[in-house]
Amino acid sequence: MSYSPLVQQLMEAFRCLPGVGPKSAQRMTFSLLQHDRQGARSLAAALQQAAEAVGECRLCRNLTEAEVCPLCQSERRDGQVLCIVENPSDVQALEEATDFRGRYFVLKGRLSPLDGVGPAELGLDVLEQRLADGEVTELILAISPTVEGEATAQYVGEMARQAGVGVSRIAHGVPLGGDLEYVDAGTLSHAFAGRTSVG
Amino acid sequence: MSYSPLVQQLMEAFRCLPGVGPKSAQRMTFSLLQHDRQGARSLAAALQQAAEAVGECRLCRNLTEAEVCPLCQSERRDGQVLCIVENPSDVQALEEATDFRGRYFVLKGRLSPLDGVGPAELGLDVLEQRLADGEVTELILAISPTVEGEATAQYVGEMARQAGVGVSRIAHGVPLGGDLEYVDAGTLSHAFAGRTSVG
Repeated sequence: MSYSPLVQQLMEAFRCLPGVGPKSAQRMTFSLLQHDRQGARSLAAALQQAAEAVGECRLCRNLTEAEVCPLCQSERRDGQVLCIVENPSDVQALEEATDFRGRYFVLKGRLSPLDGVGPAELGLDVLEQRLADGEVTELILAISPTVEGEATAQYVGEMARQAGVGVSRIAHGVPLGGDLEYVDAGTLSHAFAGRTSVG
Repeated sequence: MSYSPLVQQLMEAFRCLPGVGPKSAQRMTFSLLQHDRQGARSLAAALQQAAEAVGECRLCRNLTEAEVCPLCQSERRDGQVLCIVENPSDVQALEEATDFRGRYFVLKGRLSPLDGVGPAELGLDVLEQRLADGEVTELILAISPTVEGEATAQYVGEMARQAGVGVSRIAHGVPLGGDLEYVDAGTLSHAFAGRTSVG
């Protein structure tokens, strides 16, 4: 052991980050301590503040330190259309890629009864209440087409139909620029079955 | 902008880490806030403590929060042999790979007059004093064979000779398991010139 205790401790603490192994943790530690003390202090403060204050939006369950997140507060968003996603990062991906002007609802997971993830864990009671309120008239499901994702989409779709709310699902198929040869069989069969007529 | 201010701030703070771009920063932020608040708090505390307390060892300039680092304090290390390295991470690499039982001296850089890095910035005055003290009888140079590294090695070597201390340099050549075909020309020519007789 050639590290001082505090250096060693920092190196180990970095391991909580996704994708950071022993080598990266070492590199991060030396980089901050040798060249960027100010960055280290800012990161410490940002972590501390976010860990204490960030909770979830009362309306959409996205990460926020406020009671209601900026997106749900914004009056420039259309409250009639609700896009259902699995993760906070999906919100960002859709915001960057599409011109969607409605609001979101973040499930933070997929139905997985064996892991103890039921409708309540995904906030589906909150969503049901929201659909019952009557403002929402259209639901867009942007849930991954995995086995659990399909089950979740089906469950939410059923809820929407019972509330008399229209439901659509984003298209799944061959990605743009994707070479058919390299697309997996499941996607290809799905894309083939879901062909749309042209001209 | 779909992030709350504290989430955004954390995402930006992660960018101070080497090798972390916008995507990784986003992944780290969501991972900690969704699944590992405790990890976030520990990392914040470790960063804070290390940024405040870690300085450099009075004897070897390695990173430590103590006045003298564990390695320089240890009585099981041989104070007569001093290995000169560029970075704190080099100390760890040598500790893991070799059975060297002497002590280290960390330059924290290479001589580079154009960038304002002279002998004083590398702590060579401290090293000179240490050589004059007489305990050290052998110096091992483990400095990268770059242009600036060569200049640094030459400078330190000259200092050692003037102090009457023996100097050696770690071998540079074709790495073990390295295919000659893929070794760069500089390394190959260096290895060829530095051949040693066998049998």
